[in-house]
Amino acid sequence: MSTVEMEVFSNSQLIVLIILMLIGGEIFTSMVGLLFKMFQHKRMENKISSLADSDPSTCQSSELEMVEKRDFESLESGNHETNSLDSSVDLLKCKSIKFLWFVVLGYFIAVQVLGVSLVSTYLALVSSARNVLENKGLNSLTFSIFTTVSTFANCGFLPTNENMVVFKSNSGLLLILIPQILLGNTLFPSCLRFCVWFLGKFFKKVESNYLLKKTSEVGYFHLLPSQHASYLVVTVFGFILTQFTLFCSMEWNSAGLHGLNSYQKIIGSLFQTMNTRYAGESIVDLSALSSALLVLFVVMMYLPPYTSFIPVKDDEEVYKKRNRRGRLLENILFSQLSYLALFTILVCITERQKLEEDPLNFNVLNIVVEVVSAYGGVGFTTGYSCDRQTQPDSNCVNKFYGFSGKWSDEGKIILIVVMMFGRLKKFNMDGGRAWKLL
Amino acid sequence: MSTVEMEVFSNSQLIVLIILMLIGGEIFTSMVGLLFKMFQHKRMENKISSLADSDPSTCQSSELEMVEKRDFESLESGNHETNSLDSSVDLLKCKSIKFLWFVVLGYFIAVQVLGVSLVSTYLALVSSARNVLENKGLNSLTFSIFTTVSTFANCGFLPTNENMVVFKSNSGLLLILIPQILLGNTLFPSCLRFCVWFLGKFFKKVESNYLLKKTSEVGYFHLLPSQHASYLVVTVFGFILTQFTLFCSMEWNSAGLHGLNSYQKIIGSLFQTMNTRYAGESIVDLSALSSALLVLFVVMMYLPPYTSFIPVKDDEEVYKKRNRRGRLLENILFSQLSYLALFTILVCITERQKLEEDPLNFNVLNIVVEVVSAYGGVGFTTGYSCDRQTQPDSNCVNKFYGFSGKWSDEGKIILIVVMMFGRLKKFNMDGGRAWKLL
Repeated sequence: MSTVEMEVFSNSQLIVLIILMLIGGEIFTSMVGLLFKMFQHKRMENKISSLADSDPSTCQSSELEMVEKRDFESLESGNHETNSLDSSVDLLKCKSIKFLWFVVLGYFIAVQVLGVSLVSTYLALVSSARNVLENKGLNSLTFSIFTTVSTFANCGFLPTNENMVVFKSNSGLLLILIPQILLGNTLFPSCLRFCVWFLGKFFKKVESNYLLKKTSEVGYFHLLPSQHASYLVVTVFGFILTQFTLFCSMEWNSAGLHGLNSYQKIIGSLFQTMNTRYAGESIVDLSALSSALLVLFVVMMYLPPYTSFIPVKDDEEVYKKRNRRGRLLENILFSQLSYLALFTILVCITERQKLEEDPLNFNVLNIVVEVVSAYGGVGFTTGYSCDRQTQPDSNCVNKFYGFSGKWSDEGKIILIVVMMFGRLKKFNMDGGRAWKLL
Repeated sequence: MSTVEMEVFSNSQLIVLIILMLIGGEIFTSMVGLLFKMFQHKRMENKISSLADSDPSTCQSSELEMVEKRDFESLESGNHETNSLDSSVDLLKCKSIKFLWFVVLGYFIAVQVLGVSLVSTYLALVSSARNVLENKGLNSLTFSIFTTVSTFANCGFLPTNENMVVFKSNSGLLLILIPQILLGNTLFPSCLRFCVWFLGKFFKKVESNYLLKKTSEVGYFHLLPSQHASYLVVTVFGFILTQFTLFCSMEWNSAGLHGLNSYQKIIGSLFQTMNTRYAGESIVDLSALSSALLVLFVVMMYLPPYTSFIPVKDDEEVYKKRNRRGRLLENILFSQLSYLALFTILVCITERQKLEEDPLNFNVLNIVVEVVSAYGGVGFTTGYSCDRQTQPDSNCVNKFYGFSGKWSDEGKIILIVVMMFGRLKKFNMDGGRAWKLL
């Protein structure tokens, strides 16, 4: 949920937002990273080959044919006798990265095009959803694209003020969006691996084999090793099931789900629990949820996207390679949780006045939800309600924007820092090494 | 703070409590552990020597003389040629453990005897403190012993209903208790190491040398390696300074410190911030503290006692040896924080009714304070106040017991589990290994 009311945007402004969400999404930016890797590789090879006085070899080089003829397996057995074989491996890597880039691009386009067509079709068929858009003066195609792109990129923005609350009885729409949430984020590595495997099975065997077997050498963050990718699926659905169970048992008869039939409640609950990681769309008012659920949501929002249960092997010794950073930096860096605690404390300091005067809106749980949600890029918020004021202020008007909209400027700045920090979390997942907890 | 009003106890009941606190404290129980280690060692040696057909050697064996004559340093250089030398090393270890046992015992007695005499003297000299006890009908010697033992063992119980709030202006008493808190818990390893070094310098050189140099072989949890023991001091005072700064800046003009002069405020703040790790005595009503401070307290209470900053070495590879546990167990165990989150969610479920009806007393922060305080063995509580009820209940009477006293039975049972879990935390500090956060 945003800190402004979304319906202030015109159609063309929405289109600008769509473009921003498209190019700002995790998957799109990672494709730019892949592109850089490809170019870097090419340049390095050019250098090597010019040193070796041979033709500058590019990815398209015919040397690759040679490698394709050999069985790929032989590369793995460790027979690296000749230089030419080494440079062939480099070529293969280069070509594999290029292949991966096209797979990601295809995935990116296919999933979203499918999403847009499904949402459009749904809007064309179901008059209740169409009427909502007509009343708000929203273009139905823009809405379809905006919603799909935003859901796939896990932005959580919607062109409606009330986010998904207005569509909570449109179970069909929710069902269309659920796969977008998963495919665009938590399940992306598993699906990507599946695509690579699938394409390898029927088309490009060598590149696929390389990508599947030398996953860590490719160095693409979203391509995970086989074991991780499979357990990720189990973990993701495990988390969803946990949240879904608690959600249904705590909220089945709550005001938020009032007026829905059992089927709609189930789909709605499923949609809501999927959104904690990390789309952040809502069909209910989060502040009305039970605290137990909010605490669980905070945990879920905190966990990084590719968190996975991976069984410990019996003979495995725990041995971590360190990212080489300066010694000073290693010592200064704290763990992620310490930073989150620090940010929460800072916000509690900047909002101390309101924490005392307006304790039902401004309480630490709501602040933690806001901070962790910003960190995880979720966008959940408990909102602000004039009805919860203990000393009612007659000038208070209920708005459709998030809780942080009521914060002081300092608090908002801290939240912006938290959001940036959250986007960069993968660079500090091993922080706090200088601290020994005993 | 306890869940009953403390003044219901008679003098003889207080004495029973003193004995329980004495023998239940961390240091006392660790001495029992050392004793076991000593006996185990003796039995093993008896077996070995009976196999070798020589006299059963005990710690008192004269073989040790031989070792004492050699320079201890030579043992370190790795010249283990003969069996007799090996068994001498075993003897030395045995004798060192015995020596350590006496050092801990001496420390345990000396610090507490000193504390009791200081508190008694203070009570004899300062009439305001004596008057409080007389009004409550408390025996002044019992009070001295109870307070000292409870503070040293970091129990946080006091014979007064109001805990230390009645003594908040008795800065002298607070100053006497502050070292007891530190010496009985967070600084114990550093002081113990200092005592061993000091005694080695002037009396028992060989045993001290062994203890200081082969610290990890002794396997006594509270005897930490040199680097850890020194940085521990820095860390402990760093944490105190952080809390003290925030406490003073947030609470200087608060109601809790009202009526105190600047000196009393400083000592009071210092005392209060020391108590988060982990004595749990209070001179202010915690529920009146600002949220920022409570969040910081939660972090401090969570951290295990010997948490320390230890600079990362440049050439050091992170290599962790695992406690050998079954593979199944390794996979099932979660990290400490996950368990705390789980317990918090469970309490939120058992208290869901009150969280809705009485949101100012029952909020998640207060529950988290209670849960983490139970986990850390602190005993902080935000209490329960009838004045905070949003729907005032005319039958409500303010009591002097903790917030958890108002919880449902299920909630209390969960809290008991949390307390036991907290006492056993050192056995699961490396839990959650099967989870990869990426």
